[in-house]
Amino acid sequence: MNFHYPNGKRYVPAVKKAASQPAQKKWSYSNRGMTLEEDINQSNEYYLTHGIACIHKKPTPLQIVQVDYPSRSAAVIKEAYFKQASTTDYNGVYKGKYIDFEAKETQNTTSFPLKNFHEHQINHMKKVLNQRGICFVLLRFSETNEVFLLDALYLLEFWDRMVNGGRKSIRKDEIEEKGHSIPLGFQPTIDYIKIIDYIYNL
Amino acid sequence: MNFHYPNGKRYVPAVKKAASQPAQKKWSYSNRGMTLEEDINQSNEYYLTHGIACIHKKPTPLQIVQVDYPSRSAAVIKEAYFKQASTTDYNGVYKGKYIDFEAKETQNTTSFPLKNFHEHQINHMKKVLNQRGICFVLLRFSETNEVFLLDALYLLEFWDRMVNGGRKSIRKDEIEEKGHSIPLGFQPTIDYIKIIDYIYNL
Repeated sequence: MNFHYPNGKRYVPAVKKAASQPAQKKWSYSNRGMTLEEDINQSNEYYLTHGIACIHKKPTPLQIVQVDYPSRSAAVIKEAYFKQASTTDYNGVYKGKYIDFEAKETQNTTSFPLKNFHEHQINHMKKVLNQRGICFVLLRFSETNEVFLLDALYLLEFWDRMVNGGRKSIRKDEIEEKGHSIPLGFQPTIDYIKIIDYIYNL
Repeated sequence: MNFHYPNGKRYVPAVKKAASQPAQKKWSYSNRGMTLEEDINQSNEYYLTHGIACIHKKPTPLQIVQVDYPSRSAAVIKEAYFKQASTTDYNGVYKGKYIDFEAKETQNTTSFPLKNFHEHQINHMKKVLNQRGICFVLLRFSETNEVFLLDALYLLEFWDRMVNGGRKSIRKDEIEEKGHSIPLGFQPTIDYIKIIDYIYNL
C-alpha cells in the first residue's frame, strides 16, 4: 500500500496534478514493475537475509482513536488517522554506521520536484547529519527507471535554494552531477549499499 | 496509549497475570508517575531539542484493511489490526553510531521475566550486533523505580540460557552485575546517553 500525506500548503496542487494525468498513464506505469518502495523493501530483505545490513522501513504513523476488542486475542482498530511522519521512512545500521534515507519517485523526466519532501523530513535530515549519520535520498525517474542516490547535504542545498526564492525542483543534470546513479539488478534490485560503501568509504 | 501484543505462546499467561492483579494496584502505579515509554519519549525529545542525539520511537506497525475518504483531505482508517513488530521500538543516531533499544518494565522486584521480549526482537538485536550497532535494553523495576541499561549481548546470553532449559527470567542481581543503573533526573528523566558515552567510549 502506498499512502500520500497531506503536505501542508503543497497538498492541493499535488492532488490537482495527479487528477489531471490520464488514467491509463498510471496503469501503464504500474504494469511496468514494482514501486520504488517495493523495490527497496526487497533490497532491504536481501541485505537482512544475507547479513549485509539491517535496514527497515518505519511503519506508517497513525493516530488511533477507537479500538474494539471482539475477543481476547484480536483487537480491531475501528477509527484511526494518518499522521505526518516526523522522520524519514527508512533507517538502520551498516558496519556500525547509522543509515537514514527517504525514497521518492517522479514521472517528470527533466527535474525532480522538491514538493515530494516535507519540511519535517528536511529538518530530520539536518539532525541526522549533525549527529554524523549517513543520510541521503533515493530518487527514481520512473519514466526511464533511473535511480540516483543523492546525499542529504546536496538535497538541503537545493531545498535552501527553493526557500530563498529559487526553483522548486532539482534539475536532472544537477542530480547526475551531485548524485550517484545506482545500477539496477535482480537481487537486490536497488543495490544502494554498494554505492554507500564507495561514497562514504566504509 | 500503551498496547501489548500477543506474544505467541506466552500471550495467555501474560493476560492471566494482569487480570489476577487487583485493580487498585494498577492505579497506584499509574498515579506514581509516567510510564517508561513516556519517560523515554521525553528524554528523546530533550536529546533532539538540544542537539544531543536523534533517537525516535518507531510507530506501532498496523495492518490497514479498510480506508474511507469522506473528503479529499481526510482519510479515515475504518479497519486495521496490530501487527507483530519485527524490530525493537527505538532507534536513531548518536555521534555517527547506530543506537537501537527496547524498553520494558516489570512489577516484579527480584527478577525480570524474559517473556517481556519477543523472539522477533531478539533476532533483530542479533542482526544489529552483527552490524556493530549499539544495542541494549532499558529495564525498569517499577516498584522501586530503578532503571538499568543492559547490553543486548547479555540479554542474548540470558535468552539462550532460557532456551536451553534454564530460568525464564533474569535475576535482579545479574542485572545489577552486568547492567548499568541509570540515575533518574528531571531533564532528561532517563539520561541513558550519558551511560552510553561511558560504556561504549564514544
